[in-house]
Formats: sequence, structure tokens, C-alpha cells
Amino acid sequence: MVNWNNMDTLASFQELLKAEQVNLVQVMEGENGAERVKKYSVPMAEGMVYNYAAKQVDDTVLEGLARLAEEAQLTEKFKALYNGEVINTGEKRLVLHHMTRGQLGEAVVADGVNKRDFYVEVQQKVAEFAKKVHAGEITNAAGEKFTTVVQIGIGGSDLGPRAIYLALENWAKKHNTLKMEAKFISNVDPDDAAAVLGSVDVAHSLFVLVSKSGTTLETLTNESFVKDALKNAGLDASKHMVTVTSETSPLAKSDDYLAAFFMDDYIGGRYSSSSAVGGAVLSLAFGPEVFQQFLEGAAEEDKLSMNADITQNPAMLDALIGVYERNVLGYPCTAVLPYSQALSRFPAHLQQLDMESNGKSVNRFGEPVNYQTGPVIFGEPGTNGQHSFYQLLHQGTSIVPLQFIGFKNSQIGTDVVIQDSTSQQKLCANVAAQIVAFACGKSDENRNKNFEGGRPSSIIIGDQLDPRTLGALLSHFENKVMFQGFVWNVNSFDQEGVQLGKVLAKRVLAHETDGALKVFSDLLNI
Amino acid sequence: MVNWNNMDTLASFQELLKAEQVNLVQVMEGENGAERVKKYSVPMAEGMVYNYAAKQVDDTVLEGLARLAEEAQLTEKFKALYNGEVINTGEKRLVLHHMTRGQLGEAVVADGVNKRDFYVEVQQKVAEFAKKVHAGEITNAAGEKFTTVVQIGIGGSDLGPRAIYLALENWAKKHNTLKMEAKFISNVDPDDAAAVLGSVDVAHSLFVLVSKSGTTLETLTNESFVKDALKNAGLDASKHMVTVTSETSPLAKSDDYLAAFFMDDYIGGRYSSSSAVGGAVLSLAFGPEVFQQFLEGAAEEDKLSMNADITQNPAMLDALIGVYERNVLGYPCTAVLPYSQALSRFPAHLQQLDMESNGKSVNRFGEPVNYQTGPVIFGEPGTNGQHSFYQLLHQGTSIVPLQFIGFKNSQIGTDVVIQDSTSQQKLCANVAAQIVAFACGKSDENRNKNFEGGRPSSIIIGDQLDPRTLGALLSHFENKVMFQGFVWNVNSFDQEGVQLGKVLAKRVLAHETDGALKVFSDLLNI
Repeated sequence: MVNWNNMDTLASFQELLKAEQVNLVQVMEGENGAERVKKYSVPMAEGMVYNYAAKQVDDTVLEGLARLAEEAQLTEKFKALYNGEVINTGEKRLVLHHMTRGQLGEAVVADGVNKRDFYVEVQQKVAEFAKKVHAGEITNAAGEKFTTVVQIGIGGSDLGPRAIYLALENWAKKHNTLKMEAKFISNVDPDDAAAVLGSVDVAHSLFVLVSKSGTTLETLTNESFVKDALKNAGLDASKHMVTVTSETSPLAKSDDYLAAFFMDDYIGGRYSSSSAVGGAVLSLAFGPEVFQQFLEGAAEEDKLSMNADITQNPAMLDALIGVYERNVLGYPCTAVLPYSQALSRFPAHLQQLDMESNGKSVNRFGEPVNYQTGPVIFGEPGTNGQHSFYQLLHQGTSIVPLQFIGFKNSQIGTDVVIQDSTSQQKLCANVAAQIVAFACGKSDENRNKNFEGGRPSSIIIGDQLDPRTLGALLSHFENKVMFQGFVWNVNSFDQEGVQLGKVLAKRVLAHETDGALKVFSDLLNI
Repeated sequence: MVNWNNMDTLASFQELLKAEQVNLVQVMEGENGAERVKKYSVPMAEGMVYNYAAKQVDDTVLEGLARLAEEAQLTEKFKALYNGEVINTGEKRLVLHHMTRGQLGEAVVADGVNKRDFYVEVQQKVAEFAKKVHAGEITNAAGEKFTTVVQIGIGGSDLGPRAIYLALENWAKKHNTLKMEAKFISNVDPDDAAAVLGSVDVAHSLFVLVSKSGTTLETLTNESFVKDALKNAGLDASKHMVTVTSETSPLAKSDDYLAAFFMDDYIGGRYSSSSAVGGAVLSLAFGPEVFQQFLEGAAEEDKLSMNADITQNPAMLDALIGVYERNVLGYPCTAVLPYSQALSRFPAHLQQLDMESNGKSVNRFGEPVNYQTGPVIFGEPGTNGQHSFYQLLHQGTSIVPLQFIGFKNSQIGTDVVIQDSTSQQKLCANVAAQIVAFACGKSDENRNKNFEGGRPSSIIIGDQLDPRTLGALLSHFENKVMFQGFVWNVNSFDQEGVQLGKVLAKRVLAHETDGALKVFSDLLNI
């Protein structure tokens, strides 16, 4: 049986507050620094490593974090989750996104079905459909192949699948497995749908409408937008659309779709990339085999998250160091900095994953907590960020912990040698240099050129960004966020904070406003 | 004569610290709230307004901010800047980006030339070149028209021009003034250049190489990448490339380019969108008339920034409220949330503009300051963000001040009516609703559904995002950042914090490393 206690009631957390803090500049210097880099490294799945040498920790702090992990029962709570307990207490739901990629514990039966079987069956159904589309067995009314797939969805139905598509698009081209180009329509801004529709050949486009409830206003509105465009092109919309939705949604049994692929209430939007929400568009774009590899990478990483030894569990360790930075060191933000242009939208996905999961002020019982929870997450790819906001990270008055990601090899493999090094070598040299520059700084008598250092970072290093390493990366961050939610004793799986805005927006559209809301509505000509 | 004093030495700042803080929930309620929305509004250029009713200010705080503006001599410092004083003290340079769009004060002569004349002449040279390209008078070697323009640049040579291109692409299509599609290559990651080159028809592409010094490693590397691609396609690279650089750069007199358009040391990268750095690619993409409209919008907004009355100077007021939030209320971040998909990369540009300018720990004399300076800036378009990180903004433990941007009309004008409202109405209703939801909150006995409110925001409202309103928006934020730098007494125009990483990266590539840097280099296979 697990106990759900607030973090500040745990003796191990109070001890951490008292422990001596590490002087990062000192410990990263010279041979001691070299030893740390060798020692403070954890293997991840798919040959990757999580290196935390440049984090503000030492053996004493790590022992404290291990005690916190034990006292907060992180391993037991994860076990309760994958064994099907009602972890999402607010909405009284199981939390089963891990089960889309494997079975970590006992069989879980809900709504009368074995859930692992359910997710696998949906994957198979998606795979069969995708193969028929690729083979030209499912075509448009004129019998022509579909060349483009367009996802219509918002939030978790957009950010994760879009980030993954962009991460693998060049890899797929290089490996001749880009079956269809993918596009995404998300915003209720009519210019979003209009611009995407203007950029595709609708006659050869297949649309994937993603809404669990079948009631998301943005998504239904954009569906109508698309249906209008299809009609205006003289096409039968129902021959150009599939849906990903729950079995109980109004979309599930509609004749408006070529096929319906099911999701359920046990997978939240931001955790749904490995469900049919990501599976449909990615299987259509890259082929189901590629999506399967992505799932396998995630499954391997999930297994590592079961380890009770924090030095062998990269997601748990990353989570605990993040808690230490947030609640002991008092840093309010974290930047995610992939040295990979293909990961350009991965930080935006992690921003949702993290901030929507742990941006909470009450614990899982609805009681206010007396400590900071989820940080602000932001990020852009390196080296671009170096020529942008890194100035503040190096010399600003706020310390921002950093999460680097780097790969030894590029995806496309085309490169150029300038000044005796390839672009890929320059990219990798820059991320190595940044870690040390942030940690160690450099004294200068001219204070304007002085670098204090002491700015903590970690790095995940892989051989190449491919479906498997990307799956492992996704799992790492999903599980990191989950473990942090366990430590903070919040429910990382609901999002009540998005409701009030929806209610007020409806009131504006119905012209049922007064006070400030009425005047703002007038200013915006509504 | 102006005095450059640290903010905490100013009596007006000390008074602000003591002033009673505004309870936003209370003041935004009922008719009082409605009155605030009407009253706390400043006209901007091009018919826009800056509304700060939902900021944590009242008449007392505003009077305090007015005294701070006066004591910090903000108007005088701006005047000194546009009259050509050496405001960028670290690099001993004038700061003249405003002069690309107008002359606010006295004629400024530097390097023996009138700088306004210099910038106008460059604009004319760019315009003539662009017109010849559009008219088919400058073509590829086969005499065929160029159809695509590709900017090669990083940081300020990438983020601003890219954000502006994306902001106006659909508008230009709608107004039949999209002359050439634009693409951008920035990252040293070889997959960036390879992917862009794979997506364009190089035989009909014109490349704009942007590097002030002519020594930016990423940009020179990507230039070689592009030259290889042109050579491999059997093309003469020098017939496909122009450069934007300083007159003293090695690129200026090279035969490798069809033309060289000059910039100078008085315009920093992040302030260079209205110089030839933005001018070349945007004039080629949209036609020089459109770029001229953009400059005119910025010029109109610049004039408003000269006003000593803060209630008539939106940039100065925005700046002062930001300082109040950072240094009195203690909020470490600011989110920029445009309700416009076309502004998808505008927050990334503002992130550089703000964080690189004011992410400093020393004042303009190189002395450490005892207060917080520039905040972390991040943002994504609404309504997308509502389905992502807004959870933390509404219910997280940190308060994040918000900067909304909204337009009454879409750019493309194609829309759909669902549930009795257009998408554009839904978009506007959502931003109005969010302001009030953040400010007022909503009590609920279930604490998980409770919204504390008291989360401050401002909004800029315009009729439509077009070249003029976009120019005004850019000017607003550039001048806001400048005024904040004046208050904090930092140099907003240098970026010494980017140097150390460059030095260490070179050392890695030369294999001249030891300690932690050597081990990290080994881990990354360099």
C-alpha cells in the first residue's frame, strides 16, 4: 500500500534542505571534473546515456535524493500506476499510456477488456488501414492514391505527433520510408486551417480528426473548415477522413469517416503520442513498422523507470534533481535545448507535458501545497539558441537549469568540412563547450566579460535521432514528469486549469457578459 | 546631460517598493473592472491599442512609475540614443536601428556619412535589385526567373526576418504580393541546410548570406553547404548569391556575390530586422513596397516612444510595468501569447530581443547590480497554448505575467460559422475570456477547480496583422526592451555572454581540451 504525503512532510526532504549545497564551479574543475563526467552517467535505452555531471549534486545530495525517492515511494507508485490503480484521482481514472508500448506489470482489465489487448488491437487496425492506403487499396473516389495526411487536433493531439513527425521526417526520407507528407491543423484561428488547406492538394489528402470526447470546439470547427474545402473541390468528405476518438464519442459511429480508431479515458492528451493519437498520423506518414520501432524504444526506456536504484533509473534521477533545483535551490524555470534541428518542436511538446501535468497548487486530495511545483519549461534547438537567449542563461541574474540533448551523428548524412571539421562535429563541439562554459564560467577583470559559472545542466547523448531513440526520449520525459508529480503529491493527469477560460469564452460568444469581460469583448469586436 | 544610475539608487524606485500592491481580483470585478478596461488603454500606431487594465497597477502605482520614468530620465536617454550618442558603451558604438525607418532627432554623421542617408540608400539599392529579380532582369544563368529566396543567417539574422516572413506570408498571398517563397537556413546542424536544400529548386533559388562580420562560423559553414549544392547541380554559385554584410567585412568586396547590401556596427543583430538584414529577404519575398509599409508602421510607433507622458507612450509604460512586475512583485518570467497563428515565431524573436538585451548582471559601467534584470521570455500562439501550458499559468504555484496580442480580423478571410460564430470570433472570444479568467479567477469549493486569479496580463489589439501593424508591433517591443535597459542601467546592446561558448567550442574542435571538457568531447565522439 502506498502513502500519498505532501513533500514537505517527508523527513528526507527536510534533510535535503539542510544539506550543504554543491559549488559547481569547484567540483567541475580539473581532473575532479573529468572524473565526475565519467561517473555521473546513467545508461538509457537504445545506447543513450543521461549525464548529470554538470548538475549541482554530489554523492551526499544523491544519497539524500535516494532517500527521498524511497520515502516518497516512487517505485511503488509507478507500480501502482502500471498495475491499474486509479492514479488520476480527480477524474477517477486509471493512467495507462505505458500500456500502448508494453506491459510492465499485471494484466489490467477495465470496461470489461484487457487494456493491453485493446491498445494492440487498435495499433493493428491502424497498421492495416495505413498499409492499404500505401498500397493504393484505399484511395480517393477517383481511385488515386492519397499523398498527404493532415492531422486535425489541438494540444496533446497536435504537439506530440507534430514534434515526432518533424523529428523523423528527414530520417524517413533518408531511409525511403516517408510514405505520405504530414501537415497539422490546430488553431481555431481561421488562417491556420486556410493556410494549410492552401498548401496541400485536397483531392489527394487524407484527414485524421482527433478528439477524444468528440466535442473539442477548435477541432470540430476545423473539421467543418476542411469539409467545406472538400465540398468546394467537388469531393465527398467522408471518403477523405478518419477519426481517432473514444468509443463513447458522437464521432465513433458516424458515417462521416472511412474508419474510426479508438482511444480511451485512461490516456491523457499530453501522454497520447504513443496511442492512436500519434499512431494514426505517424503510421500513415512513415509506415506502421516505423511507428512500431518508436513504441519499442519507449518500451525499453519504460522498463528502466521501474528500477528502484536511482543511479540506474535515468527518468527518476532526472526528476529528483529537478525537484532539488526547484524546491531546494529555488530555480523557477528549466530550458530544454536539443542540439538537433529535427527536434525543433520537441521543447514545445515537453512544455505541454510538464507544465500541464505539474502546474498545480493543490495536492491529489485537493489541498493547497506549501511548496513550488512544476517549473516553466521553454527551449529552442542549439546552436540557434546560442545566438539568441543564451546571453541571459550565461550572464543574467536568474539561474535557469538546462537540459541538453545531443546526437553523435546527423540524420541525413550530407555534411561539409570547413576549417577541418564537419558541421556535425561543430554541432557536438558546441554542446560540449556550452556545458562546461555554464558550469565553470571564466573569470575576467572586465566584469562585463566575466562568467560566474555555477549554472547547472544535464545532457542526454545518443548515436542518432531515429524512431527508437526518439521513443526512448519521449518515455524518459513522460516518466520524469510522472515521478516529479509523485514527489510533489499532485495529480499529474488532470487539467482543471483549462476549464474556466472555456466557460468564459462561451459566455462571450453568447453575448452573456458584463463588467470587464463585456468591454474586452467590445474592444475585440465580438 | 543624462545620469546613468542604478535603479536601486533612485528614490522613486524605493517609493514603489513601499507602495500598496493592487489586488487584481478586487479591482477587476464588476463595473469598476469595466471602467478600468476603458481607462487603462493607450493608443498605438496604425489604430492599435495597448490595454493594461488587467495589470497589477492603479493610479497610485502609475504615478510612481511616472516618477521612476522621470528620475531615470527615460525620454532623455532615448533622445541621446537617437541623436547619436555612444549608448552601447561596452562596444563603444552608437545605436541607430530606429534610423532605418525614420529620423527622430538630429542628423547623425558617423564614419563620414549621414547615417539616415546611408540606410535609405541601402534600402533603395535592395529595392532596385529586388525589382529586377521580380521583373526577370536578374535571372539564373539559363535566363530563368528566381522563384525562391533562401536566407542564410543565425540569431538576429534569422529569428526576426523569419518571424516577419511567416507573419506576412498569408497576407501577401491574399494581396497577390508574394513574389518569391522564402526559406531559412540557420543551424550548424547539417540536417538543417540539407533539409532546406532538399525542399527547394536550387536552380531557381537566390541565397542571401547575412553576416555583419563575415566571420560567423555557422553562417560561413552553411554558405559552403549551399555552394556545394549549387556546384553539384552544375550551377555557378556566384550567380545565385547576394550578401548582407558590413563594408569592412571580407565578404563586402568578394566576387562570390551578385550584390552586397551593407549594414554597420550601429545596429545589433537582434535589432536588425528593419535594416538590410530583414530588408533584403523581405523585399525579395514581398516586394520592396511591402517592406516600406513595414518600416512606416515602425516609424509611427517610434514617434510615440518619444512622449514623456507614460500614459501616452505605450512602449515606455509596458516597460515600466514589466520592471514593476520583475523588481517589486518578483515575477521571474513573462509569456508572450499572440492570438494569431501567423505570429507563431514572433515570441521566439522577442525571446532573443529581450533576453539577449537585458539578461545582464552588470550595469553599463561593468559593475554588478543588486537587483533582478531581464526575465525569461517564452510563448506560443493562442488558442494552442490554452490546450498546453496554460494549466500552469492558471493554477501553478508561480505567477507569470502575460502579454496577449489579438486582431479583430483574420488575414486570409476564409472562415466558417459553427455554433453561430466564426472561427475569428471564437479566437477573439477566447483571448477576452482568458484575460478575465487570469485576472479574476473563480472560487470553487473543490480546490482542484478553484482559480485564485490575480494573474496579470496586458493586450495589444489591432484591426489586422499587416505590414504596418507588424512594424508597429516590432517597434513597440524593441523600445520596451530599450526602456527597461535604461531603468536597469544595463547595456542592452552588447552580448558578451555568447563569447565563452565560442572560445571553448573552438578548443574542442582543435582537440585542445582537458578535464571535464575533454571527457564530454569524447562522449560526443568529437
